Amino acid sequence: MDLAQRLLSGDMRALARAISMVERHDPDLPELLLAVRPSAGRAHVVGITGPPGGGKSTLADGLIERWRTQRRSVGVLAVDPSSPFTGGAILGDRVRMQRHTLDSGVFIRSMAARGHLGGLAAAAREAIRLIDAAGRDVCLIETVGVGQSELEVMHTVDTVVVVTTPTSGDGVQMIKAGIMEIPDVFVLNKADLPGADRMIRELRAVVHEAAHTRPKRFVGSDGGAAGPAWEPPVIRCIASEGSGVDELVAAIDRHREHIEQSGELQRRRVERYIAEVESIVAEMAVQRARTALRRGTIDIPDDGDLTHADPYAVASQLLDSPGPG
Amino acid sequence: MDLAQRLLSGDMRALARAISMVERHDPDLPELLLAVRPSAGRAHVVGITGPPGGGKSTLADGLIERWRTQRRSVGVLAVDPSSPFTGGAILGDRVRMQRHTLDSGVFIRSMAARGHLGGLAAAAREAIRLIDAAGRDVCLIETVGVGQSELEVMHTVDTVVVVTTPTSGDGVQMIKAGIMEIPDVFVLNKADLPGADRMIRELRAVVHEAAHTRPKRFVGSDGGAAGPAWEPPVIRCIASEGSGVDELVAAIDRHREHIEQSGELQRRRVERYIAEVESIVAEMAVQRARTALRRGTIDIPDDGDLTHADPYAVASQLLDSPGPG
Repeated sequence: MDLAQRLLSGDMRALARAISMVERHDPDLPELLLAVRPSAGRAHVVGITGPPGGGKSTLADGLIERWRTQRRSVGVLAVDPSSPFTGGAILGDRVRMQRHTLDSGVFIRSMAARGHLGGLAAAAREAIRLIDAAGRDVCLIETVGVGQSELEVMHTVDTVVVVTTPTSGDGVQMIKAGIMEIPDVFVLNKADLPGADRMIRELRAVVHEAAHTRPKRFVGSDGGAAGPAWEPPVIRCIASEGSGVDELVAAIDRHREHIEQSGELQRRRVERYIAEVESIVAEMAVQRARTALRRGTIDIPDDGDLTHADPYAVASQLLDSPGPG
Repeated sequence: MDLAQRLLSGDMRALARAISMVERHDPDLPELLLAVRPSAGRAHVVGITGPPGGGKSTLADGLIERWRTQRRSVGVLAVDPSSPFTGGAILGDRVRMQRHTLDSGVFIRSMAARGHLGGLAAAAREAIRLIDAAGRDVCLIETVGVGQSELEVMHTVDTVVVVTTPTSGDGVQMIKAGIMEIPDVFVLNKADLPGADRMIRELRAVVHEAAHTRPKRFVGSDGGAAGPAWEPPVIRCIASEGSGVDELVAAIDRHREHIEQSGELQRRRVERYIAEVESIVAEMAVQRARTALRRGTIDIPDDGDLTHADPYAVASQLLDSPGPG
């Protein structure tokens, strides 16, 4: 049985191998992705992000446990920008989750993706497709860092959960700054710490205001679809005690139901599909340019120094060269 | 006088405006970059990176001071992946450097670059070109984070300085793991902390070994050029007291001289030029694809759902569509 078939039959070792292909950008990957594509599109893809120290991993662990109680199979992808400086910390964080490794209903994998032209988001999109096609009911994407590329990863999921804490104070600032247009569900974790009540009130007020002043970009991005807009709920959690996790699971399910009915899910899928196509276009174009460069079919300035040529003219010449083969 | 002329005459307000154009990906930027291109290529571009808490900003501050004593003009670019979570910390770190703002010989600017198709590295390359063309003798690039995209930024400079400390212990691990192929100069900062001597010895041993076993990729990447290979020096610093900074300045100058004479500088420039062309090719191709998508000139599956089409086939159709206009 080939890799695609094994993956489609739910073989987790095949899934692990396929994700390694994403990581190392294997030339056989496009074919595999194409083969599994018709079987994908069923999983609920949930993203979890937020500042370090907010308890994302503990919360993810709680979510996995609840989903398993509901007999849903889970695929977890920890997206890791693969910094050589933080490698140790990342592994440390995930120790807790490793207790699920004996449960075949839980697949956990961290993915580094260096040098992927489309960036982390493109790599995440591919890995999600594979997890989805392998028949997982829920696919949970956790970002390790909080940089720009990690935020872009959140554009590849159905439901974005942003985790903040009373001490970070970032949640409110984030929304006020208009930067965090992406959350579908807010979690105030460590809600037993001082200041939690005030922060919940502030978050709810800000979310409510945003829902009514910027309905198109913020708040579920319903973009004019039928039905009421989605106002991101703010869930109190103490993840270390398991408190609030049931409410979080329910909110995530409600969001999925909402976007399914409002047409937002399909809209997000088309958007993601176009992003995927654009990243393939960029990659194809660069491949074509590299081939042309190797063939030496471009005009080099009289002094023989390529770097003295107008890079836009060179690029345009390369783009219009005949493709490889 | 237009912006290009003002920038070329060394007007720092024009430079600041031009870098804002890089940040927001202004459509007039390509023309500006082209206009200033012949005047660039003179500055020594130095990158400084390393784990958080290693004292990069204090060290940068010390470098600026020494360079100013030598009457060299300086442009500093703090490349910021623009995480909404760390915004405050970034500004805080830079307070110390702000004392140079009254000195017209020092230009300091942080640059966020969201959504640049070529990533942070492409944005950094453009900003460096501008700083260079504005006549700065030294252009210092400091990365704020330590993610993948920040490491890629280091491929755009002439001399990479990696800062580590006795407590981080990352320096040795980094090289051993074969990940950090990029440093040209190592700094062990906070060298008054316990463990510094041992770490210096370890770093030097590892660097020396690497210089003799992997001469092509590591150690100045001389790639077969004439002359002896570059063995990255390991400099002891206590940046907060200014100790070791003179040695660091000298090591940076020695490296520049080395790569100039060995031909490595030109090799790096050609490499950077090709990376720039590739990023323009990718961008042009995506623009072309977007135009074609808007024109609706692609085949949509019978069920009317674009996402059911083979994305590779769609991409290839888009890539071969006639360009905009």
